[in-house]
Amino acid sequence: MGLTAARLVAIGAPLAADEEAAVTAALAAAGVPLEARMVVDEDEAALERALAARGLLTVIVTGAGVSAADVARRTVARLTGARLVLHDRMLAALEEAHRRRDRPLPRREERLALLPQGAAVWPGDGEMAWSLETPDATYVVIGRPGPPVLAELTAMARRGGAGRAAVAVRTLRTAGVTLAAVEERLTPWLAGEASDVTVAVVAVDGEVWARLRARGATLEAAAATLAAAEADVRARLGEDCYGCDDETLERVVGRRLVRRRLTLAVAESCTGGLVGHRLTSVPGSSTFFERGVVVYSNRAKQDLLGVPEEVLRTHGAVSAPCAEAMVRGVCARSGTACGLSITGIAGPDGGSASKPVGTVFIGVAVPDGVETRRFLFTGGRAAVKALSAQMALDMLRRRVGGE
Amino acid sequence: MGLTAARLVAIGAPLAADEEAAVTAALAAAGVPLEARMVVDEDEAALERALAARGLLTVIVTGAGVSAADVARRTVARLTGARLVLHDRMLAALEEAHRRRDRPLPRREERLALLPQGAAVWPGDGEMAWSLETPDATYVVIGRPGPPVLAELTAMARRGGAGRAAVAVRTLRTAGVTLAAVEERLTPWLAGEASDVTVAVVAVDGEVWARLRARGATLEAAAATLAAAEADVRARLGEDCYGCDDETLERVVGRRLVRRRLTLAVAESCTGGLVGHRLTSVPGSSTFFERGVVVYSNRAKQDLLGVPEEVLRTHGAVSAPCAEAMVRGVCARSGTACGLSITGIAGPDGGSASKPVGTVFIGVAVPDGVETRRFLFTGGRAAVKALSAQMALDMLRRRVGGE
Repeated sequence: MGLTAARLVAIGAPLAADEEAAVTAALAAAGVPLEARMVVDEDEAALERALAARGLLTVIVTGAGVSAADVARRTVARLTGARLVLHDRMLAALEEAHRRRDRPLPRREERLALLPQGAAVWPGDGEMAWSLETPDATYVVIGRPGPPVLAELTAMARRGGAGRAAVAVRTLRTAGVTLAAVEERLTPWLAGEASDVTVAVVAVDGEVWARLRARGATLEAAAATLAAAEADVRARLGEDCYGCDDETLERVVGRRLVRRRLTLAVAESCTGGLVGHRLTSVPGSSTFFERGVVVYSNRAKQDLLGVPEEVLRTHGAVSAPCAEAMVRGVCARSGTACGLSITGIAGPDGGSASKPVGTVFIGVAVPDGVETRRFLFTGGRAAVKALSAQMALDMLRRRVGGE
Repeated sequence: MGLTAARLVAIGAPLAADEEAAVTAALAAAGVPLEARMVVDEDEAALERALAARGLLTVIVTGAGVSAADVARRTVARLTGARLVLHDRMLAALEEAHRRRDRPLPRREERLALLPQGAAVWPGDGEMAWSLETPDATYVVIGRPGPPVLAELTAMARRGGAGRAAVAVRTLRTAGVTLAAVEERLTPWLAGEASDVTVAVVAVDGEVWARLRARGATLEAAAATLAAAEADVRARLGEDCYGCDDETLERVVGRRLVRRRLTLAVAESCTGGLVGHRLTSVPGSSTFFERGVVVYSNRAKQDLLGVPEEVLRTHGAVSAPCAEAMVRGVCARSGTACGLSITGIAGPDGGSASKPVGTVFIGVAVPDGVETRRFLFTGGRAAVKALSAQMALDMLRRRVGGE
């Protein structure tokens, strides 16, 4: 057979960027371009549909570019066998969008109003969305998913889904626990293939997530089935489950600090600012985050944190005494009740027999006292940084305590 | 029609995480789960193949989980109409992998040796890879893309691609320039639809990339065509093009600093550690990165950088004088020749009429002197942080100078 191109399908969770780059390079070495990347739920029917495609609602996002919109309208026409015809309403929308920016519609953009026959142009302020329903599938083409488009999308999905079982989904996110441990605790759910609820356990960015999917005759019925399953799964996960859906670990940490009126300072060596970056991604983080220091050099550790030279000489910068001095120093100098410190060897260089690459010490200070722990993470530089930041935030979450 | 589920296809570049979450929520509100996410090249044939699938090499990555491997083998069997039969070689590989971890193969994992008839089990140290070739498509199923699997993947793609045109690809990455400006400069290339080379311009993570794809009778011919096109495109992009393929802006900045034997310190306010995180993602960054401070509070700006109280009182923390004091302070206190400072309003709160959300001041210090610039970025908190970090690194790249 003649291969035209390649695509990459990850089941359950996306590949790490460096792994994706490695696959791309392996194929490029054969002159076969990797032209599509997918992440598909861990579900046989979902994978089959992703690879062969029937009965799906496909949302195509073109971004701001004219050429991507062109690619989308032509491809949908060809796939559905529909002729391209001029849609007056789309033409008017294009002209209006340009008028607002005080320039006429360029000739080459007029063709964006040529849509497959039968296409519906969506209302909405110049977002240029349209859809086409066929017996086999529904296509929605949008520039960017703004609020009017999203509202229309829900309405269309509801109409399209009428008369068949609805699905309700929830992702329960855990930290500080392995995939195998989560699978073990959820064994009764993972085995129940015929039930109305399916549970998949996946590892995403150094966390382990349990993905729940419940079916019901109506959305309300599906939601009720989901709620019952979720309560049981949450009970099995206990404090290891920190949140659900798009709740992040840093957001939960921030919320707990704010509730207890605690402030935080962070001293990072091998994570290089990642912990500060994650914490300051939380809106309103200035309430709890006082400052951070990225003490990459030994001199910076002494200058900014007062780590004693003797600690560095006797134990080295990657050691429990150094992590403890770092976290005590950053709290003392910033006047915060809580602190985090991370010092380790992210690699690829700098490892030794007693402290191989991936060795990381984390210090956590809360009003109750200071704790340090030693870890040995595996993976490349990016993975060691990510796992260190993850574990530091999770240690703090557990020490700060319940909500 | 009855919609079973939905999938999301982004053309050219992935959606931002918050946009993807918004689409997922819009569909969940209708009880239709978003079960697959794809990123497809800006190319009609590629989009058609992604949606309908023929002549493709599909690489399925299952991760470590047993259940994902199960989903993959069953789905490929069903799609290709192949029976599942016991593959002795896979069974032996499974047993061997468990023996190495000193435990017997669990009963429930034995079924992983049931593969579609005609499947080829790949050599390799326990990575459990296999492939199935049909007249229509080729499927490769792997756990993780380790080196032996990648080498085999290249060999298989080369065999599968024998006799047809090869494709060579290159991504040229720019910084500090808009998508419209790049499109304008590359107009001759974007128009040439019939040529052997196609160029697509896409915005990815606050950067603009030009993706080149060249066809040729052989891989060597495709590479030669690509090289000629690349030289012309690079000439049109000039210094705005900082690198290609998986080269990152931080890596280029680091390389330029090391060549000129310069060291760097960073003072971040609204970016919260993101610049430090990006710079320390570069292996060997301790050669050029001395330290960073995340000065979220005014007190931290005074304590750690010596920003005069008068500057904060007269101009505010988000101002050119503050950015300048920050970058001068961080260089002076750390003894580095180069420095970066970022202070701004990432939102959603904190904006005013004269300094709306998205207002960011960036300071750059090089041996020649200090420069500050004011920006107004649009988008949410994550976008403002990302664009600020990007622009700061790019200003530094240009000031440090050529390679």
